Amino acid sequence: MYQEPKNIKEVAVSYLGQPGSNTFSAGRLYFGQQVKMLAILSVEDIIMSVQSDKSDFGIIPLENSVTGGISESLDFLCRSNLKIVGEIILRIHHCLLVKKSSANGMDIGKLGICYSHPQAFAQCRDFLKMHKNLYPFYTSDTASAANILLQDDRSDSCAVAGKTAAGIYGLKVLSENIESVKNNYTRFAVISKKENPTGNKISLVFSVKHSPGSLIKAIYPFSSRNLNLTKIESRPVFEKPWEYLFFMDFETGSDQLPVEEAIKELKEEVNFVTVLGRYMKGEVREA
Amino acid sequence: MYQEPKNIKEVAVSYLGQPGSNTFSAGRLYFGQQVKMLAILSVEDIIMSVQSDKSDFGIIPLENSVTGGISESLDFLCRSNLKIVGEIILRIHHCLLVKKSSANGMDIGKLGICYSHPQAFAQCRDFLKMHKNLYPFYTSDTASAANILLQDDRSDSCAVAGKTAAGIYGLKVLSENIESVKNNYTRFAVISKKENPTGNKISLVFSVKHSPGSLIKAIYPFSSRNLNLTKIESRPVFEKPWEYLFFMDFETGSDQLPVEEAIKELKEEVNFVTVLGRYMKGEVREA
Repeated sequence: MYQEPKNIKEVAVSYLGQPGSNTFSAGRLYFGQQVKMLAILSVEDIIMSVQSDKSDFGIIPLENSVTGGISESLDFLCRSNLKIVGEIILRIHHCLLVKKSSANGMDIGKLGICYSHPQAFAQCRDFLKMHKNLYPFYTSDTASAANILLQDDRSDSCAVAGKTAAGIYGLKVLSENIESVKNNYTRFAVISKKENPTGNKISLVFSVKHSPGSLIKAIYPFSSRNLNLTKIESRPVFEKPWEYLFFMDFETGSDQLPVEEAIKELKEEVNFVTVLGRYMKGEVREA
Repeated sequence: MYQEPKNIKEVAVSYLGQPGSNTFSAGRLYFGQQVKMLAILSVEDIIMSVQSDKSDFGIIPLENSVTGGISESLDFLCRSNLKIVGEIILRIHHCLLVKKSSANGMDIGKLGICYSHPQAFAQCRDFLKMHKNLYPFYTSDTASAANILLQDDRSDSCAVAGKTAAGIYGLKVLSENIESVKNNYTRFAVISKKENPTGNKISLVFSVKHSPGSLIKAIYPFSSRNLNLTKIESRPVFEKPWEYLFFMDFETGSDQLPVEEAIKELKEEVNFVTVLGRYMKGEVREA
């Protein structure tokens, strides 16, 4: 874990959503149980919370294997002075949850209202096709679904959410891993005002002009050095049709010199280059 | 527009969602008013609909400028024998809609329940902060929100959805362009069983081993030919940590030879290469 600036119990971490959200789980797995976790409703507000010293770290989703890159996170990060200082990858599972009080001998076939986010329902489509008695009631996120279920008086209501949410809201897991989409992974970035002085991975963003060959020219300083590129993503800036944003991650190993040299060479080709951060390559953990 | 195989009125197009969805709007703008539009609930089912000749074309979202690439669409496309034959880019706007019957002199400050998808609410966060009387009620998509509003008996309910949905469900637009996120564009692919024989753009997918330098090696056949790359995206296959998927788009112009040569060279480096399709570069249209 990234070296803490103070006693672990005094460290505050802003995360997206509410207790039991995927970002909450990622934060707990990364920082452990002792840090203070602050629930925040948007990525923009997480960045403001760290910038204004209300929290020491933020944790935000960067990309998901099903829905793709979460461009908004990278956009806000580019426009802030914060740095990525850590990374964690979470394998996302969905469970069918019921209240403990109503769960004795509970039969899925007898359940009715089912709370969850539209995307979680979409990811569990085969399970829902098999259990047509489950009546979707949409919520803003899966942790909210668990929270709303807890406050629901009906004994036949249920929710689709993760195991962490079940634990936090004292719910029973009736069915595990009900997702049709099995390769559901989210990559999270830990962000901070202070740069991480160590790390074996680096993330960059730069902007290039939208002209023939410009993307290829921007790749050349890296391809000619045979660097260990682990991610590359171009993004058109539709409202500026003459511009591209370009995101790259490299594993640097102990020798960071070739990356430094490539960045220097790149600067002559592009509008701007920003190092989004250096950090230790993250592990894949189960949510 | 891509050359039709039969009389335009007999052409069936499968699209995602229901009448008034963004994919519906994209389909209407691409194909015009005369084709038969078939509402389908998932990208997977759209692909099956085209594969089984229930429709001639499908239209699916490929990437969004806010939420990023819609990896699921590309995944299903890779595993099908369908081809991309067209492209259209839609600028997405959100509006506050009310029923015409209750809209005489309607004051936003007096509205209550507001139907929409969680992401649409998130994209209109500043508007919602200004109008705290609006009480979010989540729906599976924005077109559903408009449809549910139409059937709601309360006179103070409203919905956040697009103009097309307002037109289809006979609703009044009370406020236009209420989104905080202004650069909201979605790129759609038109897919078909028959390849498009013409086109100035090509989309590729290939898979490479996750070893130092492998991504860079895969880029080299293209960078050395100075091709007009318009999109590049690597995607880790988390459940196969030794593998990457790689998506690339090129503008080919009249001379397609360099791209053909690069693909041939690439084949020696990678596990597989698939041409996802050739098509005319799409225009940006207002939703």
